[in-house]
Amino acid sequence: MSTTNISDDQSKREEELVHAVIASFEKTSNPRLREVMQKLVQHLHNFVRDVRLGESEWGSMIDFLTAVGHMTDERRQEFILLSDVLGISMQTVAVNNEASGSATEATVFGPFFVKNAPPIKIGGDITGGAPGQLCWVEGTVRDTQGNPIGGARIEVWEADDDGLYDVQYADGRVAGRAHLYADPKGKYSFWGLTPTPYPIPHDGPVGMLLEATGRSPMRAAHLHFMVTALHKRKLITHIFVAGDDLLISDSVFGVKESLIKHFDIQRGDTPTPDGRDVGGLPWSRTRFDIVLAPA
Amino acid sequence: MSTTNISDDQSKREEELVHAVIASFEKTSNPRLREVMQKLVQHLHNFVRDVRLGESEWGSMIDFLTAVGHMTDERRQEFILLSDVLGISMQTVAVNNEASGSATEATVFGPFFVKNAPPIKIGGDITGGAPGQLCWVEGTVRDTQGNPIGGARIEVWEADDDGLYDVQYADGRVAGRAHLYADPKGKYSFWGLTPTPYPIPHDGPVGMLLEATGRSPMRAAHLHFMVTALHKRKLITHIFVAGDDLLISDSVFGVKESLIKHFDIQRGDTPTPDGRDVGGLPWSRTRFDIVLAPA
Repeated sequence: MSTTNISDDQSKREEELVHAVIASFEKTSNPRLREVMQKLVQHLHNFVRDVRLGESEWGSMIDFLTAVGHMTDERRQEFILLSDVLGISMQTVAVNNEASGSATEATVFGPFFVKNAPPIKIGGDITGGAPGQLCWVEGTVRDTQGNPIGGARIEVWEADDDGLYDVQYADGRVAGRAHLYADPKGKYSFWGLTPTPYPIPHDGPVGMLLEATGRSPMRAAHLHFMVTALHKRKLITHIFVAGDDLLISDSVFGVKESLIKHFDIQRGDTPTPDGRDVGGLPWSRTRFDIVLAPA
Repeated sequence: MSTTNISDDQSKREEELVHAVIASFEKTSNPRLREVMQKLVQHLHNFVRDVRLGESEWGSMIDFLTAVGHMTDERRQEFILLSDVLGISMQTVAVNNEASGSATEATVFGPFFVKNAPPIKIGGDITGGAPGQLCWVEGTVRDTQGNPIGGARIEVWEADDDGLYDVQYADGRVAGRAHLYADPKGKYSFWGLTPTPYPIPHDGPVGMLLEATGRSPMRAAHLHFMVTALHKRKLITHIFVAGDDLLISDSVFGVKESLIKHFDIQRGDTPTPDGRDVGGLPWSRTRFDIVLAPA
């Protein structure tokens, strides 16, 4: 607590208040709820005391939260966006996916995952005809001892070249998502699209906050993965594109150094790994070797 | 930061994330907004890391805030109620009304103040016919050197015996509120009602939180004061009733020891200070000597 220039009397009053609020939660029957509420109180009061929050600033915060609440409906979750741009979503991911040796790092889940995406075989195509540059993705799934995890389930999903996920299309078609299984040697591969950047929804109060603080709503280009296997911790992550200018300013803080991959652009006449005819158009390829932590 | 049992690697990742989020606000042009946002980020992340917030717990918090947002409209401000029951409103009052010698302590403003309440003379009646037990209130207004502040403006407002403020009546009549001015010796007095307890609105998500945590929505009985005078800090406060069981569990943490006053119950045949005929009914009397801090 920074309480510079605060008298002892004043400091004592403020601390007594914190203790009184914490004590008020003492009768909570659920011990975890008690702990969470008491610590929430401690940290929120630390904030108010640390910045010496003005009464009109408090009022502005109430107004902001009210606007966030009124922006939120079944299709738009402005509180999640707020959590995202404050890095709270990513910190929650971090504390729930602790560093485990060489295990691949997790990142934010995002709102665009869909259950029961179409199955594809190894080397299949997830694009569903979505616009964009074709990209060959390949890699392995292993445990932290380096053993291949045959049969690991891999879900992948991504936005198209216009920055839209299929769930944002008006016609309800499925594109840019699928699931497949690693082979007995842990290998997998598929055709997707070279990821491109897009903004988070920024026409609401969170967008106003970003603007007032000189921040961009853009997300670094990325491709989503969710990988599951028996007795392994579920991995929810992205891979990012090396060289993307937005890597250092991803609006939701999802980028981790270890998740940045080279997407090597190939000339249209470069032979493809599986002999696919790409119509003479440039394509890209990348490699993502996945390591799952023990459950 | 309590990071017991967290590996150095993990701790480093979490700290790097906090630093990245703080850095993202570096370009905020308003320096105070920058400071507030950066410290908010620091303290919110401290909370997430301290409790090791689970992903489903994070989801419950998003759902809770969403419900608070949807409960809030022009007549009902559930975010203020939330701030109140977490003691955040009271802490904001505390940091903006620092201890100043013998100055009377401030407490929460509440939502029931109305501008331009009727004027009364010293010794007048604020009740406007609201139901309740009559109460004679008297005292002085002085500065911290003990000099009387003649002409200090005193606004008073309170709930009736049913726990309702006049603004909660259906018929729009004014009752239980007024303003008056201290005399040249700083003295004031008026007839009001002996305060009675009432609950904050508890039929929404904040009420559910109170119930889940074994807390009562009841406010300790109180009488509101707002006192203003030239070159003095505006005082917004309450006085509370000695002996009220709710003093130790006021739902918004408004009670301060120095604001608890004796309301001495008088038999119906006890002569009143100003000779008023109270119809043989019991009445009460209390004293509140007010000290204003310098502006």
